[in-house]
Amino acid sequence: MSITVVGSVAFDSITTPSGSRERCLGGAATYFALAASYFTPVRVVAVVGEDFTAAEEAVFAARSIDLNGVERAAGKSFFWAGNYLNSLSEAKTEQTDLNVFADFNPRIPREYLDTQFLFLANIDPVLQLRVRQALPAARLVCGDTMNYWINDHREALLRVLPQMDVLLINDTEARLLSGESNPLRAARRVLELGPRALIVKHGEYGATAYFGEGIFDGAVRLPFRSPALPLSEVVDPTGAGDSFAGGFYGYIASQPTLTPAVFRRALFYGSVMGSFTVERFGTERLQKLSRAEIDARFEQLRQISHLDTQTD
Amino acid sequence: MSITVVGSVAFDSITTPSGSRERCLGGAATYFALAASYFTPVRVVAVVGEDFTAAEEAVFAARSIDLNGVERAAGKSFFWAGNYLNSLSEAKTEQTDLNVFADFNPRIPREYLDTQFLFLANIDPVLQLRVRQALPAARLVCGDTMNYWINDHREALLRVLPQMDVLLINDTEARLLSGESNPLRAARRVLELGPRALIVKHGEYGATAYFGEGIFDGAVRLPFRSPALPLSEVVDPTGAGDSFAGGFYGYIASQPTLTPAVFRRALFYGSVMGSFTVERFGTERLQKLSRAEIDARFEQLRQISHLDTQTD
Repeated sequence: MSITVVGSVAFDSITTPSGSRERCLGGAATYFALAASYFTPVRVVAVVGEDFTAAEEAVFAARSIDLNGVERAAGKSFFWAGNYLNSLSEAKTEQTDLNVFADFNPRIPREYLDTQFLFLANIDPVLQLRVRQALPAARLVCGDTMNYWINDHREALLRVLPQMDVLLINDTEARLLSGESNPLRAARRVLELGPRALIVKHGEYGATAYFGEGIFDGAVRLPFRSPALPLSEVVDPTGAGDSFAGGFYGYIASQPTLTPAVFRRALFYGSVMGSFTVERFGTERLQKLSRAEIDARFEQLRQISHLDTQTD
Repeated sequence: MSITVVGSVAFDSITTPSGSRERCLGGAATYFALAASYFTPVRVVAVVGEDFTAAEEAVFAARSIDLNGVERAAGKSFFWAGNYLNSLSEAKTEQTDLNVFADFNPRIPREYLDTQFLFLANIDPVLQLRVRQALPAARLVCGDTMNYWINDHREALLRVLPQMDVLLINDTEARLLSGESNPLRAARRVLELGPRALIVKHGEYGATAYFGEGIFDGAVRLPFRSPALPLSEVVDPTGAGDSFAGGFYGYIASQPTLTPAVFRRALFYGSVMGSFTVERFGTERLQKLSRAEIDARFEQLRQISHLDTQTD
């Protein structure tokens, strides 16, 4: 089943301890779409400017990603510049130019109306809700947000959270959204805000999923912890979270039904796709993977976390 | 097989967001011994003062822990006071009185000379080395250290590290000891310093084990990640790391041989014992467990981290 993602397609200038890249293709919807494309067809709803050329289009085309929902507007695409010189865990933003994104009003192509899997990447929660309502056939809605929306647009965010089956955020965002410092209590509080499941990402330590009563037939479910692969070099952390979301949701959309076992494997695929992304700048690594490489790394994740899998 | 542990037996005054306790029984050797005692017999080498009374002795006696190696000295026992009001991840030390510990010169009872499993808790590396050399029959040596020894007694520490089969430290200590910020490169560098395996503890995110060539017949081994149980309340983090070490090493000493599979299960038992400790102040929870409770939590850890274990 194909996934529709709404979010940013952008250009990023990135500096890390490993080097720099100027104006490379980025944006949450880009990373998400590339990562998910290894599992299932993907359609993108976004806006780009005149600087989005055939070269960028070709990156999506090579992964058969549908760009019919990408509006071409006069002006420049969303631009972000930042560095990770102090810490690979947190970007320092140097410049944000919203450009054509400032007036983004998602335009849903008619042929996307049959969307069953919807991903609301990190954008204004007012737009997230609008897209969700424009796609009433969506039976699984997954979304992201960030501290800016949590702090300054909380009311709008609280309106869209009950529309999400799965919310993906990181530790800091979970604390901020819940007002709780204990991770388990924070998760429970976030689930009370509406999403039926919550995935909290821990960066180099993997992620934890928490389940509310609204998912899996109301059965009470233990949390699930998925590991991250220890990597000898993190070249560029940009897009790791969106790639995680793409691997996670892409795998789910590729499966006949969403069972707890599918959800757990999807978390592993999320970690796998995040681990590939950070090994190169921007989307370099994500553009040229094979399903065999992906599954080999999935197996590696199992081996480093399961008691009885390694050949001893 | 019994384990001999050398380390501190102390009194702690602890304040956390959940409350306070004055002068409760503590010290690395105490937490380690109690945790390990659920798996195997334990002998303690330490020094205490006149404030160590029948009440404290009874705590060890209830777990059949051998105190013949505990010297009674004139004066007071090691005392530590600290709080976790700013962060449950890091204690703020308010007071440290070494007292009788200042002149600690480990005295090994003759009947300990057959020790095969030795744990060098976090004490002066000069003493760690002395104890190791005094117990030449030890065939598995496991140890701990901390930032103070890494920064200010590095040479002595570098002399004892090659004597350790397994070194247990946390993320900060691994960075400090290796001078590397990347966790995998840091681990490789620490292994070059001598220990045959390294366990890096991540607090609420579990732990990662790294294996050098000197363990498991020189086979190259993937790291192994063991999760931590999400807890709704951390009452008192004191002793969590020593309890982890006790569960880890106690399980290993209880098994006929150290295989990679035993090592991995031992990491899970480490997480289990750490999780019990932090649920109450001091050693309260550790004093009154049952093997059934321990194994139930072990199974829970497996369920929250293994892809195909939960009944779906």
